[in-house]
Amino acid sequence: MQVQAMAARAAHAELTPWSYSIGELGPYACLIRVFACGICHSDVHMIDNDWTISNFPLVPGHEAVGEIVELGSQVRHLEVGDRVGVGWQRSACLTCPECLRGAENLCEDNKGVISDGYGGFADYLVVDSRFAFRIPSGIETSLAGPLLCGGITVYSGLVHAGMTSGKRIGIIGVGGLGHMAVQFASKLGNHVTVFTTSDDKAEFATRLGAHDALVCRDGEIPEPQRKLDILLNTAPANLDWERYLDLLAPDGALHFVGVPAGKLKLPLTPLLTKRLRVMGSPIGGRGEIAKMLEIADTFGIEPVVETFALSEVNEALQRVRENSVRYRAVLFP
Amino acid sequence: MQVQAMAARAAHAELTPWSYSIGELGPYACLIRVFACGICHSDVHMIDNDWTISNFPLVPGHEAVGEIVELGSQVRHLEVGDRVGVGWQRSACLTCPECLRGAENLCEDNKGVISDGYGGFADYLVVDSRFAFRIPSGIETSLAGPLLCGGITVYSGLVHAGMTSGKRIGIIGVGGLGHMAVQFASKLGNHVTVFTTSDDKAEFATRLGAHDALVCRDGEIPEPQRKLDILLNTAPANLDWERYLDLLAPDGALHFVGVPAGKLKLPLTPLLTKRLRVMGSPIGGRGEIAKMLEIADTFGIEPVVETFALSEVNEALQRVRENSVRYRAVLFP
Repeated sequence: MQVQAMAARAAHAELTPWSYSIGELGPYACLIRVFACGICHSDVHMIDNDWTISNFPLVPGHEAVGEIVELGSQVRHLEVGDRVGVGWQRSACLTCPECLRGAENLCEDNKGVISDGYGGFADYLVVDSRFAFRIPSGIETSLAGPLLCGGITVYSGLVHAGMTSGKRIGIIGVGGLGHMAVQFASKLGNHVTVFTTSDDKAEFATRLGAHDALVCRDGEIPEPQRKLDILLNTAPANLDWERYLDLLAPDGALHFVGVPAGKLKLPLTPLLTKRLRVMGSPIGGRGEIAKMLEIADTFGIEPVVETFALSEVNEALQRVRENSVRYRAVLFP
Repeated sequence: MQVQAMAARAAHAELTPWSYSIGELGPYACLIRVFACGICHSDVHMIDNDWTISNFPLVPGHEAVGEIVELGSQVRHLEVGDRVGVGWQRSACLTCPECLRGAENLCEDNKGVISDGYGGFADYLVVDSRFAFRIPSGIETSLAGPLLCGGITVYSGLVHAGMTSGKRIGIIGVGGLGHMAVQFASKLGNHVTVFTTSDDKAEFATRLGAHDALVCRDGEIPEPQRKLDILLNTAPANLDWERYLDLLAPDGALHFVGVPAGKLKLPLTPLLTKRLRVMGSPIGGRGEIAKMLEIADTFGIEPVVETFALSEVNEALQRVRENSVRYRAVLFP
């Protein structure tokens, strides 16, 4: 069959209609008819070939939700008609130590939906069925995509930084990632302090469940009510990390899911005297993704989205480039 | 009574005999007759007032071992005649959240043996009895002191970096700290790879239990047999941290107990893609110290020491400054 997609033919190019053919499915593959697909900042990086791993024509889109229309011969855990979603990852070896302990996202042979194949800005999509996740019925189709990339990134980051419940958690930045992080942290029973540069976003974060929203003006980072157990950075900017380390309680963690350019410069003394850790993480393993979807369903964690038709993809991408989307963009084919 | 000590009267000064008087003991204090006292590089930093927290006259010495000769009225857990040891810390508030969870070393009100009183380069010493640790009978007096500062520093660092057993642990530097770290890691059932700049130290580390000893020549850091779960830096030098991060397995930790000068410069990408953490720690809490002593006794973990008479203290300090002691210096009054 022929898939109708929107593709970049070269780095930085606008997306234009493009078609490719799908042959017989491999034994574990699945064919998904796309209902909706989120736009992530990584799609822009891939279009621009910022990470020098892009192949063109490039079909972006790695926050896809749709319906299973065909399954490979060996697939038993999904059925035709199931509503499933796909995130950044399309496959892994499933045999290495990382895969065997549920950290498929750290598999050396992990493949990306759009770095190793064609993505979800299309009417159909093929991935390894073991990386297609059934969407709980309580989660709307337009909201599931952003959970599968941005959502799992902040949820997994918080968990690996030590989130349980009853913790004091700071979220740096209220954007596509941060506005989901606030919800995961507060709805799972933690006290949440947000650091933002805008009064509007502070007010918005409070509505999402933040207990305290601090506005950083002129580079000044206000003191939270108490020192924090975890600081999750969701912003791509280079901030005053020495000051942020000072806001951590003993045994606290500064965890990066937003990635500033260049090298981190960190003072060692607070790491030693307060026994702090500085860490980072990418998406999550399959078990974490399934758990994250269950939590989002149970606790009503919802990304805030703006929707666009797939034909408006270039306008939507421009809005993502400008950081003017509130807070995630979702395309409908 | 009068205590006969060796003291620095000003920053950088040689130590000279000095005497001070002890009044009635506080309810939880204990008076220790010093049998032996290790010299730590921190003593040199304190003599030189490198951390601008020194008070003069300064009596160094925070790896003291001796015998209880008198106890405050409220002390029940120790008896006169007990052989005890003291490390960096002389007291803590014992009421804050950190103290209540066994992290007295992270107490904001923690006091140092030599930063907030007179140390163990003397015939007697007074500390809070709750920071005097009974020495298991299997540990020689000359070896207990270095365990109480350097030993707990590397043991606690390894534990907080995630050491259990069966891990692959790299130790950077084979000196006063590193040679104890090799023993703790290997005797507790981990595979140990040492990174050193000298063939002699590589050979020595192997005798101490290292499974693999890699000699770094001309700044080249060799590849270990496999990627490592933990890298413990015991060296005070600024090394190629980007290369060392590359030697870590997914979810690995680069942990600092040796402190290079200046800021750490770290690439963020490996932290995110491999979910690494960079961390540090200072000494340990009381429960950790007691456990460390039990482990050292049970598994025969022994610092290698050179002994000096207290009257030779300036010669011994000079050897410590030159890093020519193999591997810890211990004074006998």
